[in-house]
Amino acid sequence: MKTLEPLHILISKLARLPGVGRRSAERMAYRVALDKQGLARDLAQALRDVDEQVCLCSRCNNLTLRSVDPCELCRDSCRDDHVLCVVEDPLNIQQIESSGVFRGRYHCLLGKLSPMRGQDIPPARVEALLARIQSEAFSEVILAFDSDVESDATTSYLQEKLAAANVRVTRLAFGIPAGSGIAYTDPITLARALHGRQSY
Amino acid sequence: MKTLEPLHILISKLARLPGVGRRSAERMAYRVALDKQGLARDLAQALRDVDEQVCLCSRCNNLTLRSVDPCELCRDSCRDDHVLCVVEDPLNIQQIESSGVFRGRYHCLLGKLSPMRGQDIPPARVEALLARIQSEAFSEVILAFDSDVESDATTSYLQEKLAAANVRVTRLAFGIPAGSGIAYTDPITLARALHGRQSY
Repeated sequence: MKTLEPLHILISKLARLPGVGRRSAERMAYRVALDKQGLARDLAQALRDVDEQVCLCSRCNNLTLRSVDPCELCRDSCRDDHVLCVVEDPLNIQQIESSGVFRGRYHCLLGKLSPMRGQDIPPARVEALLARIQSEAFSEVILAFDSDVESDATTSYLQEKLAAANVRVTRLAFGIPAGSGIAYTDPITLARALHGRQSY
Repeated sequence: MKTLEPLHILISKLARLPGVGRRSAERMAYRVALDKQGLARDLAQALRDVDEQVCLCSRCNNLTLRSVDPCELCRDSCRDDHVLCVVEDPLNIQQIESSGVFRGRYHCLLGKLSPMRGQDIPPARVEALLARIQSEAFSEVILAFDSDVESDATTSYLQEKLAAANVRVTRLAFGIPAGSGIAYTDPITLARALHGRQSY
């Protein structure tokens, strides 16, 4: 089936999506090719619309429409201007928003340090964050990163950079997830839960 | 983030792909929106190309280019015209081809019976298969379906339909997969392996 070039190209493009291996990409491409409800066209149109209409917020690096920059969250006058939540990427913003407890401002770093892979955050991006923290006079900066080695490296790095700034720097609590128990919790999580124990 | 309509549309379209849940679709959409290498455009173009250039082979229902109908496998004069391998969908053809041991013809049923979900194979599609088996005078028809309840229902149904035809009907062997052992094999597979045991 050498001639099925378009299908093979689609498979290789789909395999660039996160969490999609070769096998999954094949299944997706075949489903698209066999679909009779216009899935290929709909998906192509949706991709073009995102490509044309969505960009990064010039203030916080969240995703926004080109016509809505700064983004809705930056514009929202009901939010607390004293607390800044720094996250890795825009999806994290949406996830933190869904918890419903944070009403401050956000800033996306669009990446994290990975010393193992020699991956750096562009200095200009860190400078932009520091400049924003200085100019907007936040009283607290929450470093809301994942719980892994690269995130730890990133928060340590940012903590150092922020040491000179007159601002309280905090991080998310690490511990037992909701609905789980000690019996199902790995030793590292348990160690972190103990370490971060709180008074009643 | 009500205004991020294009992103939400993309998420809902991606969630229509097989094996893609809401969470995975979100991750994919955000990756696409943040990508700077033109992933959105490339993927949209690949989808349009498949939509415009790929169709079903008019003889066997395999996927093929509109400009190559019947498909390459139907055209290939080196293949054995006496054996027909009936499969559920075109991806199965590619998988069987990769085993390298089958050199006959193929026919895709494009679905299977699902009595539990009240899902039927359109009668016209079954008629087309039966007509092809009669007119092309195959001596053997291999029903190459998965090993699950719906596939069993489908093969039973086809077996009945083919009882009157003067053709040997076979199915794939069910048993212990390559590289695995009895200790790792579930009881049903083991029962099928015993039932289908072969003489040396």
